[in-house]
Amino acid sequence: MTYCVGLLLNEGMVLLSDTRTNAGLDNISTYRKMFTFEAPGERVIAIMTAGSLSVTQTTIARLTEAIDSGDEKRSIMTAHSMLAVAQIVGDTLAEVSHEIRGKIQQQEKVSTSASLILAGQRADGAMRLFLIYSQGNFIEATAETPYLQIGEHKYGKPILDRVIEPTTSLMDAEKAVLLSMDSTLRSNLSVGMPLDLVVIENHGLRIARARRIDADDAGFQAMSNAWSEALRRSFQEIETV
Amino acid sequence: MTYCVGLLLNEGMVLLSDTRTNAGLDNISTYRKMFTFEAPGERVIAIMTAGSLSVTQTTIARLTEAIDSGDEKRSIMTAHSMLAVAQIVGDTLAEVSHEIRGKIQQQEKVSTSASLILAGQRADGAMRLFLIYSQGNFIEATAETPYLQIGEHKYGKPILDRVIEPTTSLMDAEKAVLLSMDSTLRSNLSVGMPLDLVVIENHGLRIARARRIDADDAGFQAMSNAWSEALRRSFQEIETV
Repeated sequence: MTYCVGLLLNEGMVLLSDTRTNAGLDNISTYRKMFTFEAPGERVIAIMTAGSLSVTQTTIARLTEAIDSGDEKRSIMTAHSMLAVAQIVGDTLAEVSHEIRGKIQQQEKVSTSASLILAGQRADGAMRLFLIYSQGNFIEATAETPYLQIGEHKYGKPILDRVIEPTTSLMDAEKAVLLSMDSTLRSNLSVGMPLDLVVIENHGLRIARARRIDADDAGFQAMSNAWSEALRRSFQEIETV
Repeated sequence: MTYCVGLLLNEGMVLLSDTRTNAGLDNISTYRKMFTFEAPGERVIAIMTAGSLSVTQTTIARLTEAIDSGDEKRSIMTAHSMLAVAQIVGDTLAEVSHEIRGKIQQQEKVSTSASLILAGQRADGAMRLFLIYSQGNFIEATAETPYLQIGEHKYGKPILDRVIEPTTSLMDAEKAVLLSMDSTLRSNLSVGMPLDLVVIENHGLRIARARRIDADDAGFQAMSNAWSEALRRSFQEIETV
């Protein structure tokens, strides 16, 4: 499984992904699910992936190939708007899903579904955050719903619902996605460290911060413990009805 | 959907269920999902239900009928142990599921799955808490895992994982299941008020407390608000890594 979350805030976008993939419980590996593309000053794009690894890896590979070969119709680095980027990414994902699905016989029951979160901004454009489905269609984050999740989204949703608003600072946003991930890590073994955190500042047009957080990261552990402690203390303080 | 949770603690058992049922998003009703059976001083049993309403209602009706008709083999009020009670409830659920499944043609895609939480104690016996599946098989809560959930269990799990231990007091346990339900109510519209809360004290052999909590319950609302407030305050206090 996977957990990826992206926030669209006034100050910028904050993205966090885990790295665990598994083909059955007895076959667990670490794969990056966060991919960034930059032309500093002109555009910045980040893509997070969930679902079938063969589908998402091939999709990213094709997107990269289109950039490298300067394919004007398929390069997300030359597309004239973030909407056009979402369209290219969606079409590529749908195409790859369809091809791979075609190779797998129905009775094999291998899932080929995958989904992506796309975040980006072009010079003179607004920051945009999309969730792209297997079929290539997508939805977009708005001020009313300033975050998008893919994968195992339920455990980490309550904290986001309570603290995230468009006016949330980037520092608080980093804290919120890390705590959201912390709740997910505790409850679903198929979501696992290390984590990839990426911050894009509004109009920065580059990756402002990219950080890998390893399993032994002292800061993350301290935050996780402090949050548990704070929750237990808050629990004790609440009066029973 | 449904959310029901049962805790097995040293001091007793605490059970909480919602009451919302829906046949599609446009057909929402309120049905009790908490059923109690008492022979004060001899035994106390509570059953919570999730899944297909036709299956769970028929199951409870048959269990009640067997008690009323004094059916020695099928009455949960004369069975000689809680394990035997679990067996009867499981067999009845499997039988009803099988019958109803047989009436529904495969292409109709109507779900007949259902699950139950059974809690109870007999004189001279220990308290026992079971989760019973559609097929009639069951698992039991233990000191390592002192709670069981059915229905929409994910949103309300993090709080239970953090605060529930066998030594938790009944008062804290009531608070924990209500906060667990509160997180679920906020995130899943198909789980809804009113709630049914039941407390069974160890060796009490009767329902110690049974309470219906309505949507306008001032105490529950105050607790829900206080918890949101405490979470937001805790969030602000935590240092970012």
